Amino acid sequence: MNKQGTVIWLTGLSGAGKTTIARALSQRLEAAGLLVETLDGDEVRENLSRGLGFSKPDRDTNVNRIGYVAKLLARHGVTVIVPVIAPYRDTRSDVRRLVENDGSEFVEVFVRCDLQTLIERDVKGLYKKALAGEVKNFTGVSDPYEEPLAPDVLVDTFAETVEQSAAKIFAKLEALGLFTPTASPRNPFAVSEVAPAR
Amino acid sequence: MNKQGTVIWLTGLSGAGKTTIARALSQRLEAAGLLVETLDGDEVRENLSRGLGFSKPDRDTNVNRIGYVAKLLARHGVTVIVPVIAPYRDTRSDVRRLVENDGSEFVEVFVRCDLQTLIERDVKGLYKKALAGEVKNFTGVSDPYEEPLAPDVLVDTFAETVEQSAAKIFAKLEALGLFTPTASPRNPFAVSEVAPAR
Repeated sequence: MNKQGTVIWLTGLSGAGKTTIARALSQRLEAAGLLVETLDGDEVRENLSRGLGFSKPDRDTNVNRIGYVAKLLARHGVTVIVPVIAPYRDTRSDVRRLVENDGSEFVEVFVRCDLQTLIERDVKGLYKKALAGEVKNFTGVSDPYEEPLAPDVLVDTFAETVEQSAAKIFAKLEALGLFTPTASPRNPFAVSEVAPAR
Repeated sequence: MNKQGTVIWLTGLSGAGKTTIARALSQRLEAAGLLVETLDGDEVRENLSRGLGFSKPDRDTNVNRIGYVAKLLARHGVTVIVPVIAPYRDTRSDVRRLVENDGSEFVEVFVRCDLQTLIERDVKGLYKKALAGEVKNFTGVSDPYEEPLAPDVLVDTFAETVEQSAAKIFAKLEALGLFTPTASPRNPFAVSEVAPAR
């Protein structure tokens, strides 16, 4: 009954589909009986990092704070989904170490979509502004994005449907044993591990 | 099985005994089968609020961040103990509202000890420094502390042992139903609520 949770970090450029995949994944995992929390980038920045900007030190601080909160939640059996760019490789590694050293699983998902496609789609009109210099420090345009060299899961949102991407992640979690009987305190299959109440 | 957790906020002056009571309480609650997390003031400030000072806005930001994290943990059934001064009444109220609106319980514990006693004991030598003006913004000396007007639990650490104080809090939690069968996913008495595995 003491199995800890998992942090699923969805890294990738703005507009690549991180939030959409997070939503689909969250629904699937909740349906499987897991405790799920999604730490949305904008909401967390507002609550934990107001006043910080987009320099490397500020981005690192923000990512580390999210990692700290994710670690605490995972410690108590929660599956934590984090759809947050996290552009720097070393910072993502730091967070992985933090979570793993605490006894939880860390799954890095690279939500990949090529920049040209993102610029053409530009759902929120942000790339246009970034290319015009109206938005500063925009990842992929005027700020670096360091692609994962060996992500645990790679999803190609240009070529896949959301369901296909979510299914890939789901399969990885299954392989990690996330859905085995002792995976979560809320997992309905876990009760056989506990003495029945009298 | 969906009962959420509880945030137990221990407010009071430096040296009044918040951390000591938190430790005793945590042991008792874990022994009762609950999931427990203690958000220690120094550790949380380091991880979530580095760079913030001790002005009212900065203290409020720090307390609100801790409240946000406590809310997320309690949402998933964790009993969260917060031994953090939180000197301002309105900020404590804000955090209570945040937690309660999210469906969890909030218990404010006033860890009371009169200032004269704290200055005489001065375990860490901080009051001496504060009175000499070497430490600025020191709560109770050079910075305000707004006592709770109607705390859920009042413990008098000048007159009580740690065990007596912890027992008072424990009794309050019992009255709130924290130890009833559905209180926590890790509560061993909770399994009768779930269909047995086959």
